[in-house]
Amino acid sequence: MAGRTTRKVAGDAPKYAPGSLLTIANVSLEEVSAILAETARLERMPHVERVQILAGRRVALLFYESSTRTRTSFELAAKSLGATTTLVSDKSSSIEKGESLKDTGLTLRALGAECIILRHPCSGAPFLLARMTGLPVLNAGDGMHEHPSQALLDLRTILTRLHGATGATGAITARADSLAGVTVAITGDILHSRVARSNALLLPRLGARVLLCGPEKLLPETALGLGSDQGEGVEIERDFDRALARAQVVMMLRIQKERLAGLELDLADYVARYQLSRERMAARADILVMHPGPMNRGVEIEGEVADGAQSAIEEQVRHGLAVRSALLVRALGAGRFESVTV
Amino acid sequence: MAGRTTRKVAGDAPKYAPGSLLTIANVSLEEVSAILAETARLERMPHVERVQILAGRRVALLFYESSTRTRTSFELAAKSLGATTTLVSDKSSSIEKGESLKDTGLTLRALGAECIILRHPCSGAPFLLARMTGLPVLNAGDGMHEHPSQALLDLRTILTRLHGATGATGAITARADSLAGVTVAITGDILHSRVARSNALLLPRLGARVLLCGPEKLLPETALGLGSDQGEGVEIERDFDRALARAQVVMMLRIQKERLAGLELDLADYVARYQLSRERMAARADILVMHPGPMNRGVEIEGEVADGAQSAIEEQVRHGLAVRSALLVRALGAGRFESVTV
Amino acid sequence: MAGRTTRKVAGDAPKYAPGSLLTIANVSLEEVSAILAETARLERMPHVERVQILAGRRVALLFYESSTRTRTSFELAAKSLGATTTLVSDKSSSIEKGESLKDTGLTLRALGAECIILRHPCSGAPFLLARMTGLPVLNAGDGMHEHPSQALLDLRTILTRLHGATGATGAITARADSLAGVTVAITGDILHSRVARSNALLLPRLGARVLLCGPEKLLPETALGLGSDQGEGVEIERDFDRALARAQVVMMLRIQKERLAGLELDLADYVARYQLSRERMAARADILVMHPGPMNRGVEIEGEVADGAQSAIEEQVRHGLAVRSALLVRALGAGRFESVTV
Repeated sequence: MAGRTTRKVAGDAPKYAPGSLLTIANVSLEEVSAILAETARLERMPHVERVQILAGRRVALLFYESSTRTRTSFELAAKSLGATTTLVSDKSSSIEKGESLKDTGLTLRALGAECIILRHPCSGAPFLLARMTGLPVLNAGDGMHEHPSQALLDLRTILTRLHGATGATGAITARADSLAGVTVAITGDILHSRVARSNALLLPRLGARVLLCGPEKLLPETALGLGSDQGEGVEIERDFDRALARAQVVMMLRIQKERLAGLELDLADYVARYQLSRERMAARADILVMHPGPMNRGVEIEGEVADGAQSAIEEQVRHGLAVRSALLVRALGAGRFESVTV
Repeated sequence: MAGRTTRKVAGDAPKYAPGSLLTIANVSLEEVSAILAETARLERMPHVERVQILAGRRVALLFYESSTRTRTSFELAAKSLGATTTLVSDKSSSIEKGESLKDTGLTLRALGAECIILRHPCSGAPFLLARMTGLPVLNAGDGMHEHPSQALLDLRTILTRLHGATGATGAITARADSLAGVTVAITGDILHSRVARSNALLLPRLGARVLLCGPEKLLPETALGLGSDQGEGVEIERDFDRALARAQVVMMLRIQKERLAGLELDLADYVARYQLSRERMAARADILVMHPGPMNRGVEIEGEVADGAQSAIEEQVRHGLAVRSALLVRALGAGRFESVTV
Repeated sequence: MAGRTTRKVAGDAPKYAPGSLLTIANVSLEEVSAILAETARLERMPHVERVQILAGRRVALLFYESSTRTRTSFELAAKSLGATTTLVSDKSSSIEKGESLKDTGLTLRALGAECIILRHPCSGAPFLLARMTGLPVLNAGDGMHEHPSQALLDLRTILTRLHGATGATGAITARADSLAGVTVAITGDILHSRVARSNALLLPRLGARVLLCGPEKLLPETALGLGSDQGEGVEIERDFDRALARAQVVMMLRIQKERLAGLELDLADYVARYQLSRERMAARADILVMHPGPMNRGVEIEGEVADGAQSAIEEQVRHGLAVRSALLVRALGAGRFESVTV
């Protein structure tokens, strides 16, 4: 089970291979700390040493949806550790999805893959794949469900920016009060966002307050399905300006014009009410600006804000590469996760 | 010519580069034995040593049809030997096929490719490419013609399962009596199956009897075009239960529902007559179950049978990776094929 | 700026990262000589040494248009130097191009890419990307504008063929008289050809005369937009036979039948007037035949001519691989470009 140590524990056998990352919900804070520590350790390591860590190991990237950023990030992370990667990108498969996923997973395992990174349009697909193959599976986005590595990279971005450099040992730890007093406003198409869900599941456990912000059609009262109150520490604040006034961090989500049109939402009205504009930033010039990408500049965010000094958008990408390296090491049991207990 | 030694012989010059695998028909049993011996040698080799074998060598994968399993298998085999691979996947080319193939081949050669792995919708394309480039070409499936590396991996799967582990030296040899007394039932869409054809060309030469099984529309009397009697040691047995009763090995072929519909074959009727079901397996619980993939679970095979103890389907994939490594070493002349004479 | 040394010079800061190759127009002859020298150095280097040069460095291939030849060439060049490559191929992006390009570039930079190889349907896109990312960008073809690495490989092909082997030191140098007395006829769809434009910008600077040849619809008087006279040393010669009679080198460009039809040009008439046929070759059997590929055999060139002894078409591919290796070394500042001044 994600959140367990990478050593099998006696007794109650885990349902999923240790090192899997299926949902951020069952990764303990101790495990999060261990991942962050491994991330820092790998970052400091010289190339010649790092490239030995997963030498001769095989990692499969199985992408049923197109992706540039996440796919490239995991691929380069794996290669930087010396692993051999293979990409299976099956967007036009006519095979019934459930069966195809199982047999593709078994094939990849038989080909020597020791870890599968999966993006899939169906929520829950990574659980299925992990159970079917017994391999550690890293969820790279499943339907409208979760994107747990994104939550981890977002967390590292926030901790680094708010609490400063990681120091000589890189020891950022994730504790129940690490984000005490920090409010994060997530704004946009919450309903369809696995990024929003994974962040809403993780950040409050470190003491943060999460404000979800958007019009009713993109953010129904039960958007995240985390219960009637959206989960502990999560609340809905429909007024973006009020949300901004309370927040230290704002995460903007991509808005597709076609989706707005389909929901009969007026683009100009949306921009007026929810765009992170220079004007709005003027009132909150100290806020940390984040976006998981890809951005739709001029819709949910003005270009100048995306490129401004408060923006951590490129840092998010950098942290993504680093965090995913640690996740791969954890999945393949090649790291220093021994001391972790859950 | 495939089947020749990798050293050029004086006199009658080979038409194709040594190390090519174009059709299983002209690979001698001595050569098959050499390939199986090399496969075992590579399997036992530690990663650090294996990755040196083709270091600095270039292998091109040229796929005019989509493929997950075969492409990934060859790609990982090449990478595990340290070769540099490049994938050219040209499914939407508007170029006239013959010309494109020639010039693409010459381009890959000029780019330093020393071996081309080709999948192509036209039967015979690998011969053309081998003649045009002078490079060793590995046929990864050509039209309805052949899939020779599949026949080799199927052979290794059968020999290993029927005759036990390969022993300390891994020396499985392929002799005219290696499969004496063994009957293999190949069932399904024989007419369109290059897997069926390659197996029907190889297995009888080791003493096996091959039963082809399926309805007339998928298995006309001249399905394999190997002559009126389907070739030496090959016979048609339309009754699947009778075929199963005689066989020690059953290979199921993928059935596409669309193809059945196009031929006005009733799916329920097909399943009743030809599916490898638990019921049918109950009567032949000792039979070895094989499938080249991808499976259509619930059509030609029940899921429980595919996943059962008699199934060698994942082993086929593993043997595929191993055998293809040996084929690459053979193609690039980096192996121990000196003693082979044909 | 392309054409500057790879060391930043004090004072007037370059607009583009040193090592960029955006247009052949601002690469000085000294720089061309340095690239050719580096090409020769890399070619002579044993694999084990060459593969260390860019070990641990990251190169991104960003292709908004499909390409086999150029993409594979750059990819294998990067891998042969030990670099890690990642391919982002975004042919179906619905994102507005300008924004997408910027953010994709920033993402690749954040992922550690130190150089981006870009093919893009819009003229000028590589300039935009270089300015936005600050990274060295290699233009692998932009719209109808330029294909500068093609011009360099064509130059190397011509110099090697006309002036013989490169000698022990490989020191071909590019001087203002290196091609004095040499006439190059470029024939076909000049208007849409970035290859024609890049060659017309480079070759005359070494003393060559360039003849552009084709019917008015494919070669208007202002085809290259290099001024009313097509640029220094460039002239239009509509009669292919007269062009051939004057030329030592003939470069044929791909003709798409669909394009001819769209322009109401008759295929048979085009072939009669502009095909490089055996008949035409008989009169000029000593001419050097070039083609950037992909060829449309039987249209702009007869197959026998493409495969004949005068053809340097495969050599062009080989030189492409070598020259692009040097360009990558130059872009990543890992070479011997110190002595170059511009």
